[in-house]
Amino acid sequence: MTHTLPEAAVLRPAGDLVELTRALVDVASESGSEAALADAVEGALRAAPHLTVERIGHSVVARTSLGRAERVVLAGHLDTVPACDNLPSRLVDDRVYGLGACDMKGGVAVALQTAMTVTAPTRDVTYVFYECEEADAARNGLGIIAAARPELLAGDLAILLEPSGGLVEGGCQGFLTADVTVRGRRAHTARAWQGVNAAHRAAEVLRRLDEHGVREVVVDGLVYREGLNAVAVRSGVASNVVPDTCVVTVNLRFAPSCSPQEAEARVRALFPEHEVDVTEVVAGALPGLGRPAAASLLARLGTEPRAKLGWTDVARFAAAGVPALNFGPGDPSLAHTPDEYVPVAELHAVRAALTDWLTG
Amino acid sequence: MTHTLPEAAVLRPAGDLVELTRALVDVASESGSEAALADAVEGALRAAPHLTVERIGHSVVARTSLGRAERVVLAGHLDTVPACDNLPSRLVDDRVYGLGACDMKGGVAVALQTAMTVTAPTRDVTYVFYECEEADAARNGLGIIAAARPELLAGDLAILLEPSGGLVEGGCQGFLTADVTVRGRRAHTARAWQGVNAAHRAAEVLRRLDEHGVREVVVDGLVYREGLNAVAVRSGVASNVVPDTCVVTVNLRFAPSCSPQEAEARVRALFPEHEVDVTEVVAGALPGLGRPAAASLLARLGTEPRAKLGWTDVARFAAAGVPALNFGPGDPSLAHTPDEYVPVAELHAVRAALTDWLTG
Repeated sequence: MTHTLPEAAVLRPAGDLVELTRALVDVASESGSEAALADAVEGALRAAPHLTVERIGHSVVARTSLGRAERVVLAGHLDTVPACDNLPSRLVDDRVYGLGACDMKGGVAVALQTAMTVTAPTRDVTYVFYECEEADAARNGLGIIAAARPELLAGDLAILLEPSGGLVEGGCQGFLTADVTVRGRRAHTARAWQGVNAAHRAAEVLRRLDEHGVREVVVDGLVYREGLNAVAVRSGVASNVVPDTCVVTVNLRFAPSCSPQEAEARVRALFPEHEVDVTEVVAGALPGLGRPAAASLLARLGTEPRAKLGWTDVARFAAAGVPALNFGPGDPSLAHTPDEYVPVAELHAVRAALTDWLTG
Repeated sequence: MTHTLPEAAVLRPAGDLVELTRALVDVASESGSEAALADAVEGALRAAPHLTVERIGHSVVARTSLGRAERVVLAGHLDTVPACDNLPSRLVDDRVYGLGACDMKGGVAVALQTAMTVTAPTRDVTYVFYECEEADAARNGLGIIAAARPELLAGDLAILLEPSGGLVEGGCQGFLTADVTVRGRRAHTARAWQGVNAAHRAAEVLRRLDEHGVREVVVDGLVYREGLNAVAVRSGVASNVVPDTCVVTVNLRFAPSCSPQEAEARVRALFPEHEVDVTEVVAGALPGLGRPAAASLLARLGTEPRAKLGWTDVARFAAAGVPALNFGPGDPSLAHTPDEYVPVAELHAVRAALTDWLTG
């Protein structure tokens, strides 16, 4: 099958969903370079009379205003990680391959097509296509909108179309990163007994981390799996010197029922004899599956939700008081891999489920 | 007390030993910049009719040729580590302070004065003043002489005037450096159970190193203290990734009765399940205190020898079949410190002991 890059980035969002996904992949949009894709998406949305469109940076927000009792937000990021010899898109074995196909232009295609074709949804809908999700948090388009125009993100439920294998993944876990500094005393290795080897002392820190293992926590019926890992170890002065410090960087993934304060206390309690410097801590998001909007989606899908273990932008909605879940096409474990793809069947399934829910 | 830097580097080696030490300190000679000091030393030695002098790079060798039954080698390096705001020399409380005072211009002063004043020693003597001991091994002047003119280093005993607190330190320990690589399997920390944390596995490596502790080994009546230490630990991919490797760099100090091959086998046997990459292994030097020349020196001194725990250039002599020991003024633990000094009393004591031994 032949396929050429579009001469101009003009999308046909009401047309074939696979072609739309491929067109979105073929407009390169690494973080910081989303202008062309944002232009194309904005251009398509402005052609729809049932939508009110706003542009904020290289993010685009489109809304219906039908006066429905509920409002839901469908959101997806426009950017990708850097290319890895995986452009242009390819269609092989009913899978769309190419940079961002899985994370998350497949989801963007579904949301864009839904925006264009579901002209009279039974719930008002806010569509958010945003920039810089794969870059540092300060540039995240969703964060920028939340700060500048929080009313645009308001709703009874937010659905992030990040890849979730076509299943509903509720909430997300929080994470904490901290440096645990083990102290010793320097000495020449020829007279090591005059010092205290900090790297040797770190053995006990690593042992406790290993002992932590996986802890299952159930929230709203979903099973989260907390983990605590050393993600870096740094020690060393010179090859003939007993090192006087060893820094173990630890990463805790904690269930959304645990607050950042509790997470920090847990890590500190594990290493009472060492310095613990928390460098980053981010709350998770409660699944909120009991909310009416979420319950109706789950009922419509007829599948069991599962817990989201990684951190996603659903936490940004949760922090704003909007329950949020992940529901999108593509296997999340393929994200950021050179061979990422999205199955055509999942594109159609998610598209159909959302249309069904928004029109039923 | 006032003291000025010499206008030209002219030494008065037969004069006051403290002034000679200070003059040697005041001719800066960081590794690679020994030319001026080597010129001064060579000039002084060439003025002595009882000595045959040769210059090799910035090293100087001077020999008596009296047809004695024994030949001993007195050796010292001319270079220092980089200056640390510790020039010019100062004489305070009967200590000579300044860059290299302890390591080892005090020893060089003793050897140089002995060379000039002991004109008819009872043993033939080879004096070696050499460059680049504090730099990388390939530039070491003693190594260069050993390769180019090995006959110049021949003798029944070599005495290295490295600081040893005025005591005889026999032999030296060998050392081995190796990287122990612990393997795991990468995974996202949100799904850590899909991976194997290499840093966690390294806890057991560090525990075994700590368990090794200090092991005493007696050779020729001297007590060596072997030690095995982690000197560096490196692990880490990203703050959300379970690391798949953790490299622990270990340093073994081993008694001179242990061969490099045995040392390597010991480290490998300790970590049979991990990759062990030996990056450097250097043999120690047996004390050889039973040799007649060494025995007579010890008898003359009337002090007990002790084991040399660090590695020194005595090992270069040992490798050439010449028993060697360390005997020089200054506290070895002050070497390379900004406040290094050599006690005047030790300068005189070592000088007197050597003169006594070479003339008695």
